Amino acid sequence: MNSQSIINVRYVETDQMGIVHHSNYPVWYEVARTEFIKKVGITYTDMEKLGLTVPLIELQCRYLSPAFYEDELIVEVNLVTATNVKLEFRYKIYRKGEEKPINTGMTMHAIVDHNMKPMNFKKQFPDIYNSFINAIEL
Amino acid sequence: MNSQSIINVRYVETDQMGIVHHSNYPVWYEVARTEFIKKVGITYTDMEKLGLTVPLIELQCRYLSPAFYEDELIVEVNLVTATNVKLEFRYKIYRKGEEKPINTGMTMHAIVDHNMKPMNFKKQFPDIYNSFINAIEL
Amino acid sequence: MNSQSIINVRYVETDQMGIVHHSNYPVWYEVARTEFIKKVGITYTDMEKLGLTVPLIELQCRYLSPAFYEDELIVEVNLVTATNVKLEFRYKIYRKGEEKPINTGMTMHAIVDHNMKPMNFKKQFPDIYNSFINAIEL
Amino acid sequence: MNSQSIINVRYVETDQMGIVHHSNYPVWYEVARTEFIKKVGITYTDMEKLGLTVPLIELQCRYLSPAFYEDELIVEVNLVTATNVKLEFRYKIYRKGEEKPINTGMTMHAIVDHNMKPMNFKKQFPDIYNSFINAIEL
Repeated sequence: MNSQSIINVRYVETDQMGIVHHSNYPVWYEVARTEFIKKVGITYTDMEKLGLTVPLIELQCRYLSPAFYEDELIVEVNLVTATNVKLEFRYKIYRKGEEKPINTGMTMHAIVDHNMKPMNFKKQFPDIYNSFINAIEL
Repeated sequence: MNSQSIINVRYVETDQMGIVHHSNYPVWYEVARTEFIKKVGITYTDMEKLGLTVPLIELQCRYLSPAFYEDELIVEVNLVTATNVKLEFRYKIYRKGEEKPINTGMTMHAIVDHNMKPMNFKKQFPDIYNSFINAIEL
Repeated sequence: MNSQSIINVRYVETDQMGIVHHSNYPVWYEVARTEFIKKVGITYTDMEKLGLTVPLIELQCRYLSPAFYEDELIVEVNLVTATNVKLEFRYKIYRKGEEKPINTGMTMHAIVDHNMKPMNFKKQFPDIYNSFINAIEL
Repeated sequence: MNSQSIINVRYVETDQMGIVHHSNYPVWYEVARTEFIKKVGITYTDMEKLGLTVPLIELQCRYLSPAFYEDELIVEVNLVTATNVKLEFRYKIYRKGEEKPINTGMTMHAIVDHNMKPMNFKKQFPDIYNSFINAIEL
């Protein structure tokens, strides 16, 4: 499964260099992840209500070319690893109509309960676990 | 009681106009409010743990002159109203060494419990209530 | 002219109260303003390139009920005043499918040049000025 | 040279998980970088005025344990590489009084001019270049 989200760059996301500030790209990854999870068949809101939380444990971004206010961007996200304890997503961001990404990245997430304690994802939520496994893009 | 907090303007807080984006001023009010409450004698962290939450119901800001990256600012905050159900704070922001404020504002807060329901502040937390009453600046 | 923009609430926009942090509403007003200006017939990007800048001089927000992660919101914006030196916009934010707004607000903007100096908007940019005048909603 | 900056966690920096949102750590790295550069003997504001801009080209973060509202954090920053075209910084973030970092990271920066074009850092700004070289921590 491959999911694409549209981002319209906001004025607040620019800085005095005249380009988008680098701290916004992880936020856009998160927007894309939210839509990805919805396509998997559950909302992240519902996952949290069930006590299934996926905080970041690692983030990597490469900034290949700048983004500007009012740019329309496409954030492509893939799930590359899903285990009992971890999820790993990969991202590519394109300016609309362009072939080369302007940014690539990855996020690694722990799978924990309400109290940030490790849990047995596969055993406690077999249906959700299987939906994630099936959504892996090799 | 009058409380002053120091803000060093962050790069991320600027926008492509080359000045601080207007959405950061309410955040600085909040930083000043956090320190104000600590001076009243309790942390806002502890207030929330007790089930005493004060979400915003109103915000006003006047932008008199711009702030810039690396500016050192002073945020002055006063509590002007504290009742059983509401708190009202007033703010003035100065660039260090200047006499005229660059920004003035106010925030009004409801006093509610964990579930965003109204509560009897005075009756349930008489000590905290009295500390706030005593901190009012007329 | 009345313009409506869709906002899907981002995870980063929530705070530990479990609701959207109040500093995000002015950002959503700005997203709606960007789309409003595009409907007027020019982009804000192009306005800035022409040396036509509209920094905020005043902001007011009323928070009537909270917004939550993954909420789909509608931000309605109207231009209520446009003069040679000032623009005033009014906003109403609705949760999709609801009749009562969850937030209302206003922003007042100065019309200045590249160097934040006042300018004669009507004389220097008569076409843009007239488009704004025609977009006023009484 | 090793530089330490203090961060007091802001309410706005938390999310509905009750912890600091991961997108704030790169912002804290930037706060620490600003103070680091000042200790090197120039402000980043002045560097930009000279036409010396250092946009991010790469970011890495590891989130080892969460940060909370009102935490006092220490952000330690080192410059590990400075060449004619690149700067690389490394970061460690500690909760005050603790020995283990809660977050580690790195940022890589291109050295470009006003127009985001590569420049000859060493030749054009030999004094600044040498100050950076001398600040490298091996």
